[in-house]
Amino acid sequence: MPKRVDHEERRRLIAEALWRIAAARGLEGASLRDVAAEAGISLGQLQHYFTSKDEMLSFALEHIGQLAGQRIRGRIEALPGEPTPRTVLRETLAEMLPLDENSRIGQRVQIAYFVRALYDERPRAHAREGNRALRAFFAGQVARGVERGEVAADLDPEREASLLMGLVEGVSGHTLMELHTPEEAMGLIELHLERLFSGSA
Amino acid sequence: MPKRVDHEERRRLIAEALWRIAAARGLEGASLRDVAAEAGISLGQLQHYFTSKDEMLSFALEHIGQLAGQRIRGRIEALPGEPTPRTVLRETLAEMLPLDENSRIGQRVQIAYFVRALYDERPRAHAREGNRALRAFFAGQVARGVERGEVAADLDPEREASLLMGLVEGVSGHTLMELHTPEEAMGLIELHLERLFSGSA
Repeated sequence: MPKRVDHEERRRLIAEALWRIAAARGLEGASLRDVAAEAGISLGQLQHYFTSKDEMLSFALEHIGQLAGQRIRGRIEALPGEPTPRTVLRETLAEMLPLDENSRIGQRVQIAYFVRALYDERPRAHAREGNRALRAFFAGQVARGVERGEVAADLDPEREASLLMGLVEGVSGHTLMELHTPEEAMGLIELHLERLFSGSA
Repeated sequence: MPKRVDHEERRRLIAEALWRIAAARGLEGASLRDVAAEAGISLGQLQHYFTSKDEMLSFALEHIGQLAGQRIRGRIEALPGEPTPRTVLRETLAEMLPLDENSRIGQRVQIAYFVRALYDERPRAHAREGNRALRAFFAGQVARGVERGEVAADLDPEREASLLMGLVEGVSGHTLMELHTPEEAMGLIELHLERLFSGSA
């Protein structure tokens, strides 16, 4: 299937071009034409894959989400024994912080998407869907912690999940602004998790 | 001093034009020319006040910060008796959430500034300065809570301040994305404050 291989190769080229632009100057001011030039293809060829900037950003976000998911699974599988809910949360949250160059760039792509979503319902609905899935995953881990007696039984997993999501989002932003070092950022998340998993209200 | 009055009037016109653009479509793509047109003045007249977009965004942020400060003081003064540190924190945090149309627009201006600060050290240093001042203010309120026996003595006010700042930033973003209602957002902040001011670790 030579045609299919060609498509995948081109999508990869485009994703890498988006990545380089996000790293260097941000995607906010980048046009489809800029991305085509960076990828070394024509605007027409790019438009075969994406007809709008929002579609392109969605693709970049999904690509980042997949890479982040792979890294999280890798981190968790590398740990000895059955991972506890606290470990699963810590590793997932660590991946959401801009602790290294890759995740810093990923954050910037997410911010570019967030900014578009502020003013436009379609990308907002799409972002909301992703956030809700992540919140449900977090709530499930908190509920597992309650079952295991590690989290106080009177806590509401949904609200705890919202607190965790809010905290990691804000701490990420402050880390990008160099208000915290990456180590301090992770320390704040650990502090919050320590209290959540203290077993009492 | 007719000249001075004229300057103030014009700064006000410009601030209002920025506000309207932020409300309608965001400041990310807005040029100095767009803002001059919205304010009903020439580009040259605008450049008498600001020579770059970053200067203009700094001005808009300071203007917003002043208005928010006035609203916070107003809220606190309207409360009966001497305000407790928990009340001061709650009222300040409430003002930082996008709970009404004014603060939603203020948030959008801040996000526009944040995005520029990601890629440019000058606005980043400026934003960091403002954030550090706010963090010191929060830490002071937490320390007052410790003195009054309302916050556990083994908590570190600086880290608690960083947690509060991270949480309010992230919850604000999620509220703008309509992941929470404004009421749910305020409920999350109250939940966190309730635990912080529980008097025990």
